[in-house]
Amino acid sequence: MGFRTTLTIIGALVATLGLTMLVPATVDALSGYDDWRVFVSASMVTTLSGAGIWAASSGRIETLTLRQAFLLTASIWIVITLFGSLPFLWSDMQLSFTDAVFEAMSGITTTGATVVSGLDTSPPGFLLWRGLLQWFGGLGIVVMAIAVLPMLQVGGMQMFRAEAFETPDKILPRATQIAGGMTIIYVSLTAAAAAAYWYFGMDLFDAIVHAMTTLATGGFSTRDGSIESYNSAAIDYVAIIFMILGALPFALFLGAVRHGQWRRLFFDSQIRAFLLLLVSASLIIMWLQIRISAYEGEQAFRHALFSVTSVVTGTGYATVDYGAWGPLATSMFFVLTFVGGCTGSTSCGIKIFRFQVLARDLYQHIRKIVTPSMVYVKRYNGAPLPDTVSVSVQSFFFLYILSFFVLAMALSATGLDPVTALSGAATTLSDVGPGLGDIIGPSGNFSSLPDASKWLMVVGMLTGRLEVLIILVLFTPRFWRVNV
Amino acid sequence: MGFRTTLTIIGALVATLGLTMLVPATVDALSGYDDWRVFVSASMVTTLSGAGIWAASSGRIETLTLRQAFLLTASIWIVITLFGSLPFLWSDMQLSFTDAVFEAMSGITTTGATVVSGLDTSPPGFLLWRGLLQWFGGLGIVVMAIAVLPMLQVGGMQMFRAEAFETPDKILPRATQIAGGMTIIYVSLTAAAAAAYWYFGMDLFDAIVHAMTTLATGGFSTRDGSIESYNSAAIDYVAIIFMILGALPFALFLGAVRHGQWRRLFFDSQIRAFLLLLVSASLIIMWLQIRISAYEGEQAFRHALFSVTSVVTGTGYATVDYGAWGPLATSMFFVLTFVGGCTGSTSCGIKIFRFQVLARDLYQHIRKIVTPSMVYVKRYNGAPLPDTVSVSVQSFFFLYILSFFVLAMALSATGLDPVTALSGAATTLSDVGPGLGDIIGPSGNFSSLPDASKWLMVVGMLTGRLEVLIILVLFTPRFWRVNV
Repeated sequence: MGFRTTLTIIGALVATLGLTMLVPATVDALSGYDDWRVFVSASMVTTLSGAGIWAASSGRIETLTLRQAFLLTASIWIVITLFGSLPFLWSDMQLSFTDAVFEAMSGITTTGATVVSGLDTSPPGFLLWRGLLQWFGGLGIVVMAIAVLPMLQVGGMQMFRAEAFETPDKILPRATQIAGGMTIIYVSLTAAAAAAYWYFGMDLFDAIVHAMTTLATGGFSTRDGSIESYNSAAIDYVAIIFMILGALPFALFLGAVRHGQWRRLFFDSQIRAFLLLLVSASLIIMWLQIRISAYEGEQAFRHALFSVTSVVTGTGYATVDYGAWGPLATSMFFVLTFVGGCTGSTSCGIKIFRFQVLARDLYQHIRKIVTPSMVYVKRYNGAPLPDTVSVSVQSFFFLYILSFFVLAMALSATGLDPVTALSGAATTLSDVGPGLGDIIGPSGNFSSLPDASKWLMVVGMLTGRLEVLIILVLFTPRFWRVNV
Repeated sequence: MGFRTTLTIIGALVATLGLTMLVPATVDALSGYDDWRVFVSASMVTTLSGAGIWAASSGRIETLTLRQAFLLTASIWIVITLFGSLPFLWSDMQLSFTDAVFEAMSGITTTGATVVSGLDTSPPGFLLWRGLLQWFGGLGIVVMAIAVLPMLQVGGMQMFRAEAFETPDKILPRATQIAGGMTIIYVSLTAAAAAAYWYFGMDLFDAIVHAMTTLATGGFSTRDGSIESYNSAAIDYVAIIFMILGALPFALFLGAVRHGQWRRLFFDSQIRAFLLLLVSASLIIMWLQIRISAYEGEQAFRHALFSVTSVVTGTGYATVDYGAWGPLATSMFFVLTFVGGCTGSTSCGIKIFRFQVLARDLYQHIRKIVTPSMVYVKRYNGAPLPDTVSVSVQSFFFLYILSFFVLAMALSATGLDPVTALSGAATTLSDVGPGLGDIIGPSGNFSSLPDASKWLMVVGMLTGRLEVLIILVLFTPRFWRVNV
């Protein structure tokens, strides 16, 4: 019975996706590119499929079981990716099926790894569609992180469960309500970013697309040279500010706007740790640049802050090839790939909140070793931190590291060298974008990889975006056996 | 007051170490090598220093506080390393101070990474001393793992705490008692290994040294070509069997010999998981070799099992350059570097027991996600697994991964390339021996690394050997502030 509702929701989302394809179609048509036909065809196929699924299944909205909530969550991302890849597949850019799916998955998961080169001469509709996919993906994950993940109790996310939806049947009304508020904030921030980019010299089209991929911490650009090609300090700073905003917990924005809780934005423990990390890592990277005299003064600071922010938030824009800043910088960026932004943002990775919990538990462990007889209460953000959250977070961490090693081994099995395999696994699992080395580094491109590697990375991006556990749960016999 | 006792113990151990140096001195003198003077000088300095410390501090053996137990544990390894490096420093092999300390630390921690080449023409005393250091290191860690670590509650080791020593003041008598039983078993196994090596064609000297470094899962050899240079299937299998024995929990050997609990050796959950891992990883590696037709049939199986056993147990012997078996094999060996053998053995790394606990917690987490209302009891080896152990193990895992990344970054800062830095960090922290790549791979040598890298690796080897937490605890202000 709930499966009907699952299909209804998927159908509605697919139909919406199809209608959205008319936007790039219009842009292409107005700019005189023949590519508009591609988008119209894709739009027709997608909209009709979505409407068909919707019509066949619609009726009274019913309660979702836990199993259906998991299946819905996972299948939405897969279905949207497949339909979203149609314009890539049919476009003049001549992407293979593998490449089209890779590009769509990299878009919708806000990864930003690309197999496309020649962006500078691409039809605008094509570029806009890449931006739109990331933008929707970013919005989707923010809504999911607030409305769905806490209920599924994934990896310590129960900490962020609002009192109002303890049970699955409250997801839908609540999700709709939250989605509304989130969308308004998300659109406003995107508009602000677009205005700022435009003010500082981007043309309007580039400004809009970059604003969408900045807020989504996605990292697709309209140029092969990424943000670097604008060669403007002001634009760099705009990107830095909005990448940071995209990686903050959106629930706090909602609280600030709706209930005037602006103070929480400044005193939130996660936000503080996140900003502290950005600044301290940037200072080290800045020093490394100055030492090898790549840049000096403000330029060194800006490039350092930009690159660190881009990697930590999982955006993946590049202003410069940070692979050339020496071995320490390279390995720092590799480690930063895992970190991610704040929980409930558009960024991926392990996330600041979990590191804070892990650090508190480690500190607790050391206290117990040193003074075994004393009893301590862990606290997070002023509230007690229950052991159940600790165990969830720690299991998540173990699973994440395990997935990283498994994905790296699998990528090696497709013939990739160690640096490409390791950094490729890290960057796709954390949905960052660029890896390390000549092939997939910040000045490289994923197109030359074998198809098998690309498919593994597609799985990696999806797995990372769904907080690893959602995918794993689907593969446990217990999930299908037990009546949930 | 307890500091006196700490010094007494250190003094006694240093004096013993000094006396032991007379063994290689005798061997060199009998073989007509002038190097015997080096060992006699080193022996005099070491024995007199040890005796001096002992005499200055001795008196009634007093109760150790927790702080003193930690300090004693950490300083023993450092002091023994420094004195143990004297023969290297003064020998005809002309090692620098850095290289001498590196070689001694690699010996005493049973790592087996070496900066020495030209082993084939080295004086026998020099080779014997390397073997003896590993052999003592192996015995030391086995005693420490049973007598000290559980009491210090490090990383879940409290699971293995015998009822008899809950308090620090029981360490000494109990440790002496255990050390006696352990030494008998350790010596017997070493003798058996030496007899087997000798029987299958090694000369007596090589057989003894290899027996010592096999049981210690250390990996120092008397030849530059390691075990490979004997080119004997029988010797390979002897090494495999005794490396595995060295990586099993020695407490179970004691139980089997003393109390006839042989069944536990076959039904122990950790041992079973360990053997399962060895066999399954070997089969994959074997298949990879056959695919690239490096070897076939029994040879492929033997080389695979040998290399996997060597890396997982942290021994580090090489029969062949497994770096040449393709990218998947390379990355598998990288991942296996972290694993380690069983708790309470001579091997290092994260260890099988901890992976079992982590896997149980992950499974528990998934069960809770799928069926939130049910209550589960975790079990390990037939007994309930308390949450306190889980949290300790998980904190250990987090700290281990963190240390790995920090060490890898630090090694990069000394100019190493990513593969050398990453695999170097993994192999020293897990006390395995060889890393990956041309420089420190199985057919490479650590001598060409910069001094700064070597010192970092010295710290890494010690940190890994002391289960990371012991070192970290010493650096917390709380440890020095609180009255423990």
